[in-house]
Amino acid sequence: MMRFVTAGESHGKCLTGILEGLPAGLRVDVNLVNLQLQRRQAGYGRGGRMQIERDEVEVTAGVRLGKTLGSPVCFVIRNRDWEHWQAAMSCGPPDAGVNTRPLTSPRPGHVDLAGALKYRTHDARDVLERASARETAARVAGGAFCRLLLGEFGIGIGSHVLAVGRERVASRYERLDSSAILGLDPTSQVRCADPEVGKQMMSLIDRAKKDGDTLGGTVEVVAAGVPPGLGTHTQWDRRLDGRIAQAMMSIPSAKGVEIGEGVAGASDFGSAVHDGIYYDAEVRRFFRKTNRAGGLEAGISNGEDIRVRLHLKPIPTLRKPLPSADLRTKEAHEAAFERSDTCVVPAAGVVAEAMLALVLADAFLEKFGGDSVAETRANFDAYVESLRKY
Amino acid sequence: MMRFVTAGESHGKCLTGILEGLPAGLRVDVNLVNLQLQRRQAGYGRGGRMQIERDEVEVTAGVRLGKTLGSPVCFVIRNRDWEHWQAAMSCGPPDAGVNTRPLTSPRPGHVDLAGALKYRTHDARDVLERASARETAARVAGGAFCRLLLGEFGIGIGSHVLAVGRERVASRYERLDSSAILGLDPTSQVRCADPEVGKQMMSLIDRAKKDGDTLGGTVEVVAAGVPPGLGTHTQWDRRLDGRIAQAMMSIPSAKGVEIGEGVAGASDFGSAVHDGIYYDAEVRRFFRKTNRAGGLEAGISNGEDIRVRLHLKPIPTLRKPLPSADLRTKEAHEAAFERSDTCVVPAAGVVAEAMLALVLADAFLEKFGGDSVAETRANFDAYVESLRKY
Amino acid sequence: MMRFVTAGESHGKCLTGILEGLPAGLRVDVNLVNLQLQRRQAGYGRGGRMQIERDEVEVTAGVRLGKTLGSPVCFVIRNRDWEHWQAAMSCGPPDAGVNTRPLTSPRPGHVDLAGALKYRTHDARDVLERASARETAARVAGGAFCRLLLGEFGIGIGSHVLAVGRERVASRYERLDSSAILGLDPTSQVRCADPEVGKQMMSLIDRAKKDGDTLGGTVEVVAAGVPPGLGTHTQWDRRLDGRIAQAMMSIPSAKGVEIGEGVAGASDFGSAVHDGIYYDAEVRRFFRKTNRAGGLEAGISNGEDIRVRLHLKPIPTLRKPLPSADLRTKEAHEAAFERSDTCVVPAAGVVAEAMLALVLADAFLEKFGGDSVAETRANFDAYVESLRKY
Amino acid sequence: MMRFVTAGESHGKCLTGILEGLPAGLRVDVNLVNLQLQRRQAGYGRGGRMQIERDEVEVTAGVRLGKTLGSPVCFVIRNRDWEHWQAAMSCGPPDAGVNTRPLTSPRPGHVDLAGALKYRTHDARDVLERASARETAARVAGGAFCRLLLGEFGIGIGSHVLAVGRERVASRYERLDSSAILGLDPTSQVRCADPEVGKQMMSLIDRAKKDGDTLGGTVEVVAAGVPPGLGTHTQWDRRLDGRIAQAMMSIPSAKGVEIGEGVAGASDFGSAVHDGIYYDAEVRRFFRKTNRAGGLEAGISNGEDIRVRLHLKPIPTLRKPLPSADLRTKEAHEAAFERSDTCVVPAAGVVAEAMLALVLADAFLEKFGGDSVAETRANFDAYVESLRKY
Repeated sequence: MMRFVTAGESHGKCLTGILEGLPAGLRVDVNLVNLQLQRRQAGYGRGGRMQIERDEVEVTAGVRLGKTLGSPVCFVIRNRDWEHWQAAMSCGPPDAGVNTRPLTSPRPGHVDLAGALKYRTHDARDVLERASARETAARVAGGAFCRLLLGEFGIGIGSHVLAVGRERVASRYERLDSSAILGLDPTSQVRCADPEVGKQMMSLIDRAKKDGDTLGGTVEVVAAGVPPGLGTHTQWDRRLDGRIAQAMMSIPSAKGVEIGEGVAGASDFGSAVHDGIYYDAEVRRFFRKTNRAGGLEAGISNGEDIRVRLHLKPIPTLRKPLPSADLRTKEAHEAAFERSDTCVVPAAGVVAEAMLALVLADAFLEKFGGDSVAETRANFDAYVESLRKY
Repeated sequence: MMRFVTAGESHGKCLTGILEGLPAGLRVDVNLVNLQLQRRQAGYGRGGRMQIERDEVEVTAGVRLGKTLGSPVCFVIRNRDWEHWQAAMSCGPPDAGVNTRPLTSPRPGHVDLAGALKYRTHDARDVLERASARETAARVAGGAFCRLLLGEFGIGIGSHVLAVGRERVASRYERLDSSAILGLDPTSQVRCADPEVGKQMMSLIDRAKKDGDTLGGTVEVVAAGVPPGLGTHTQWDRRLDGRIAQAMMSIPSAKGVEIGEGVAGASDFGSAVHDGIYYDAEVRRFFRKTNRAGGLEAGISNGEDIRVRLHLKPIPTLRKPLPSADLRTKEAHEAAFERSDTCVVPAAGVVAEAMLALVLADAFLEKFGGDSVAETRANFDAYVESLRKY
Repeated sequence: MMRFVTAGESHGKCLTGILEGLPAGLRVDVNLVNLQLQRRQAGYGRGGRMQIERDEVEVTAGVRLGKTLGSPVCFVIRNRDWEHWQAAMSCGPPDAGVNTRPLTSPRPGHVDLAGALKYRTHDARDVLERASARETAARVAGGAFCRLLLGEFGIGIGSHVLAVGRERVASRYERLDSSAILGLDPTSQVRCADPEVGKQMMSLIDRAKKDGDTLGGTVEVVAAGVPPGLGTHTQWDRRLDGRIAQAMMSIPSAKGVEIGEGVAGASDFGSAVHDGIYYDAEVRRFFRKTNRAGGLEAGISNGEDIRVRLHLKPIPTLRKPLPSADLRTKEAHEAAFERSDTCVVPAAGVVAEAMLALVLADAFLEKFGGDSVAETRANFDAYVESLRKY
Repeated sequence: MMRFVTAGESHGKCLTGILEGLPAGLRVDVNLVNLQLQRRQAGYGRGGRMQIERDEVEVTAGVRLGKTLGSPVCFVIRNRDWEHWQAAMSCGPPDAGVNTRPLTSPRPGHVDLAGALKYRTHDARDVLERASARETAARVAGGAFCRLLLGEFGIGIGSHVLAVGRERVASRYERLDSSAILGLDPTSQVRCADPEVGKQMMSLIDRAKKDGDTLGGTVEVVAAGVPPGLGTHTQWDRRLDGRIAQAMMSIPSAKGVEIGEGVAGASDFGSAVHDGIYYDAEVRRFFRKTNRAGGLEAGISNGEDIRVRLHLKPIPTLRKPLPSADLRTKEAHEAAFERSDTCVVPAAGVVAEAMLALVLADAFLEKFGGDSVAETRANFDAYVESLRKY
């Protein structure tokens, strides 16, 4: 059983993550974790804060001499801008002389209003700091540890951008091979496999930025090398499709999740949607010629690539303000603005990869058990062999 | 904390559900639970089994003299066809003389192959019985109890069919008012608010049935009267949007989930997507003129209707068989066929309502606590009053 | 991950248990489950109800043709006295003509007062029915399934009675070998290994019964054949000792739990308490010459027998009534009496075995994973072999 | 729902705790948290490390301007000796020139052997660092936040030492009033209410220290002001007694847990054990004249003080070494020794208070709900009023 919790406010001292349940003996290269943090920070459309941040992880527990111990892994990502926020975000009581500027004009689409009512505060900063997408840095770091585990077993995870606003890749990129997705140019600023559309996405982002507006879009996340048999149909909340959907929809701005053909598959006939079953006698393995199911049938991985599409609304912090009402006076007021990004779709793909890694690592360990990588590997190998002999 | 687990195979003796966490003193009218079971069974496109079933719930625990006790509610839905399946589905060792006919031709799109590999069996019946959508009857019953609770607090849940295959309602039905959805004609066979399209859906189902094919589609589920403040942004797995997405995607055949504008919102500018905030001084309440967010911001209910769209692939049991390979011989073989429905989209709406009820009841009790309905009500009322005074 | 929930009121229609997480392919002999139910019902000191009950399990899900399916196992234990209780315990609204006799004199030591206040009822029957030790029948059945699993891996669980009231076994029985405990005469009415003291226990029970009084006592539960490495020290709530303590203390009337030397070990010097470590080169295994730790160090099984002692208060339903106050009038009143047992200590040992089986099976599957017994066995065998090669 | 996880190795950089689920608006005085850490560090019998440590908490999330935000509270306790351990406990790969001295002589009674086998390592340091009682500092800090919450509702928690080795308080101290326990002299070095015995305990500790031996003992923890109705009898794993027992037994060195009379109550007749029920018309409250149940009946708090006794084995790190066998060579070898304490019983009381606070806060919020202290208070007050009107 894995557990993953994070803590930390956007402008607080740091983000912290605790990831419990990794087996012992897993080689940890912190650079690989930081690489994922950098991927999250790159991406056309991010605001100025990305330059300030340059996130790096500091591992404070669970790893010793380059390997996991089996105990909870704890890591910290510091806020490099902390000194400027210390007064407003101090843990101690407010300093007499300091104006902590309550934020009272809730931004539509953000946590501000719902959170302020729920937690009974008139300063939306009390809730927006935690709801900020900054928190996803901790998820990316946690997911990076899970990727290290999955990588030991040949499971790779990648993503690409299908759409930014109305700019959408050509249809042949909708079913891009997973190897192409995992091999995407890491320096691409929009993380789009279609170079032409990638440029148009950047133009659209430029325009939105100029207009003080924001953009959403669509990403696809893919896991390759997943063995059949992760997750289970036997109880509603143990199904892998549901667990993936939760993890995806929990990403800030997520408003839609599809598995495989998803929405499109709903309008076809059954004869055109399901993936015929074949057997390859040479490698002794059942396989499909199509993968419209996105690698999941009845809440279980079926051995094909897992493919998930995530739809993100535009981020809700606009320079061009939306109508709002003041939390104290209740009078009509323009929504607050804080320095923000124009488009986080490329970054959201990296976050989605991390969340998929987390869910898959959890389901993987549920099936294969093991307290050390050596033990887990023996169990995994025996299962793979049993599939061949099936 | 609510817990809901079900057990039971499709052709086993019965389905069982245990629902834990309802407060004591909730009035239970079993007819209202059975009404939901009937709604699930109605619907154009269901196969012959629906007539056999006529599901009814037998409450065996947790309710006394018409009210909940606070202890786990347990209910049973019997399989009226059990006598015909007794030999094949017996708990005891196989009878010498009985042929239990192993099912060895896995159906693409179903649990058959992935499940057989995972649980190491060569008789797909060992897994398909539990993966059958029959299990959703138990979910509908469990959800019906949650609806009773939510109803005490003015929360109503309904659904309608937006599409069956390529037949889709006119766009004005996409944003149908929740009162219209909750007031839908209960005798409608396709549960579609657009009468013209409803007829076309039935024709399409007739055609698919004649062709031995199947159909999927899209439903929308709506919860009205939900107070702001259910769910929380503070941890990834406590967000209400993620929990709803899990519950929805866990429904058999579900392949896509949208909240509010969902996919469509991903292609718009932020200025067109977020719902401006207003204050109504008369009723002392913040409100929105639009509800593109589907009632959820940052994983918290915001006081508007919760609106979720669910996309279902066509059911994977086709009379017109798909290519498959035998589990034992590995040779190419037509997929098995069992008596089945042509289209379950109308029924899936009822299941989706139940799952939404379950998630909302859980989040509701998390916030308001209480071991008796009287206690929960006092807490709820005090909160509602505090919102007015906010 | 295993889940085990039960439902059912003492005089309701039936008890129900759902046990989730057993691997597929486990041979199930229902007689072995019923045998455990009979062991629970036997025991000197049980009241007349035991004769009425003759508990038998009806498996309604999760087992097919004599083997588990991997889906949730569901079982039911009917209340053979249901017809006499139907009116008072009906699920439907109270019948006009029927007097359901509210129980308003709470019994000290029972749920009656605390439960009535918590769940806001003036009829203690609303809470006492669920709090009755009758519910432990469902635990024993659930535990019996876990025993079947553990038995496949050579793990056996037994118990014996150390004390009933002031009658206590001679000290040499305190450290009885596990094989002697597992081999105890199953027809023994007090389940006491010391035959002389056994007789005195029966006399004491007779005397208490005559006096309208009740008795508690102490049992020891032992698990033999447990491999080292179940449970973990890495998080407070994953430690095996804590999980065992919870399971034990959750047994009705439990008021004390000891592991290994327990209370006695607290008054010794460290040099006299800890179990020296030795290595047996022949069988290639670390071992201890003593087992004061009761098989658990730092929340992990260490390969020695797990030994737990459970202390039970006397049951709180006395014919000789205790002082109480009426729930409605608040006036002083004798506590209610219902037909009850005089002493449940021998039965509690069987319940404690079941709870230990549940916790160990959960920890076992956590470590070894596997969706079929064959897969779990391969993983287990590989681990055992790795210990030999360590 | 509260969640509490900790991370950190004894000689690692720091301990970290994340506590999720506290309502917003709770006043946080970090000094009160540090006070608890100091109480843990004080106590006769602690080794030299206590002087090095002087634990202090650094809150890095969840608290702003002196109040909780409703988001997860995260805190860090630094290891002041980190620089000396940096090489041996580094997260990065081992430095070429550094000898990390594997610990291969497992200490009986400690995690060393069971953990090394489980996690497949031949350096017991890989497991012992996490199993060290140092981790309880994080528990004490987490519990301190829970105490702040409980304190808002008049619930106080304290403890005292009943025995160190064979030195035991006079019997009148066994049933010491909770106000006396909460009012204990905070500077007492053995935290024993019986001054004479306190001195003897110190002598005994001196002797053990001189002999290179260690001591265990017994503490009692008490919670006063707990309302009736926390926890529930309705499911085995929701009972408050079981949850308390788990929390207690999860404390390093714990080997026995008693609630109320516990072990002693098992040898009495029912008529002498249960606490008669009375009603005080003046304050309109049911009450007991005795509290042998320790405030818990059927897994529910009954409004009396909660009283729990915890028995601790002597700590397993002895200067006078126990027999052991080398993890690599398997040859007989003296167990390793690391600087250690002689007796941690007084400290264990503080840890036990923290664990009790954690469990009670969880059960409290489960019943009363609320996302802000104001909301929780309104709910609590209404319940208390309903008890008066019951």
